[in-house]
Amino acid sequence: MTVLDRVIGRLSKLPGLGKKSASRIAYYLLKADQALVSSLAMDIMELKSKIKTCPICGNYTEELPCSICTDTHRDKETICVVEQPKDLLSIESTHEYHGLYHVLMGVLSPIDGVGPDDLRIRKLFERIDGGEIREVIIATNPTVEGETTALYLINQMKEKSLKVTRLALGLPVGGDLEYADRLTLARALQGRQRIES
Amino acid sequence: MTVLDRVIGRLSKLPGLGKKSASRIAYYLLKADQALVSSLAMDIMELKSKIKTCPICGNYTEELPCSICTDTHRDKETICVVEQPKDLLSIESTHEYHGLYHVLMGVLSPIDGVGPDDLRIRKLFERIDGGEIREVIIATNPTVEGETTALYLINQMKEKSLKVTRLALGLPVGGDLEYADRLTLARALQGRQRIES
Repeated sequence: MTVLDRVIGRLSKLPGLGKKSASRIAYYLLKADQALVSSLAMDIMELKSKIKTCPICGNYTEELPCSICTDTHRDKETICVVEQPKDLLSIESTHEYHGLYHVLMGVLSPIDGVGPDDLRIRKLFERIDGGEIREVIIATNPTVEGETTALYLINQMKEKSLKVTRLALGLPVGGDLEYADRLTLARALQGRQRIES
Repeated sequence: MTVLDRVIGRLSKLPGLGKKSASRIAYYLLKADQALVSSLAMDIMELKSKIKTCPICGNYTEELPCSICTDTHRDKETICVVEQPKDLLSIESTHEYHGLYHVLMGVLSPIDGVGPDDLRIRKLFERIDGGEIREVIIATNPTVEGETTALYLINQMKEKSLKVTRLALGLPVGGDLEYADRLTLARALQGRQRIES
């Protein structure tokens, strides 16, 4: 097996790439500038060593805590709860939200054996009990697991004197935050609904 | 700019990847096993240093000459001329062809300033003049440049006592007359085959 076959094999295992797209990329790299190829390889190598998880919000970051948590211009009274760091990125790209985040790093999924203790839920309540937080926006995906997780969180927050909101269903049901266009996501943020308890 | 942003930026410049697919891959790599990520990076790094061009057929290979040129079981009297190494790979995947190859490494394109001397055409005629070759299959793409290149080669081969053939043009297998473009349909008609009964 040549390096070329190995590269194609490894690339085709990445999400969204099949054998054809993987070989297109491999042949492109073969023809590309050596400097470009080396820096791609180096950056991939550094990815896991340099990127850490923010101890406060759970987002991927190079500095601890992350630049969002330490940003003094952001609204410290609002937390937006998302499943994954990429969801945080999607919301940031709308430029509609200026509060803080909390990344759960997953969703409740009894079938896969993922319970509340496997997510960053305790940490979320520590932050809420810290006192400053007035609103929690639940921005899990509108999927079965996302809804289950949202309901669980809403239930747990009932006794607290918090405004708990949920992204408006302007998002297509069964969809994924990652694939929502920015306008739809922005509308969903603007139209978030208060949950009466 | 974090390593994560850099990786996303570099990945999104690869063929077939946009910003969304690139960030999906980057986040996947962040969550993936360190060993997997390192070996991907290493293989990419080795790609350009280990892979060479076969001095005979022009295909990418680790050994010189390549395994196809040195394979004693292959038909040494037939050469299939392709534009790029990936085209060779496509033909190999049919398991229908057992002859040799010749990779041009491009097509004639006066607009881009690519003339016969920029391709591996002289090398092709050296092989033909070597004596053993009896059939040349021209398998350039059915595009304007591919056709131009084919016509140029066919012209140059006129005086040689060679069987020169071209890949058949027609309807794709499993295709539909309704969705075939007019040119393809016209070529399919021109190239219609008599059914022997």
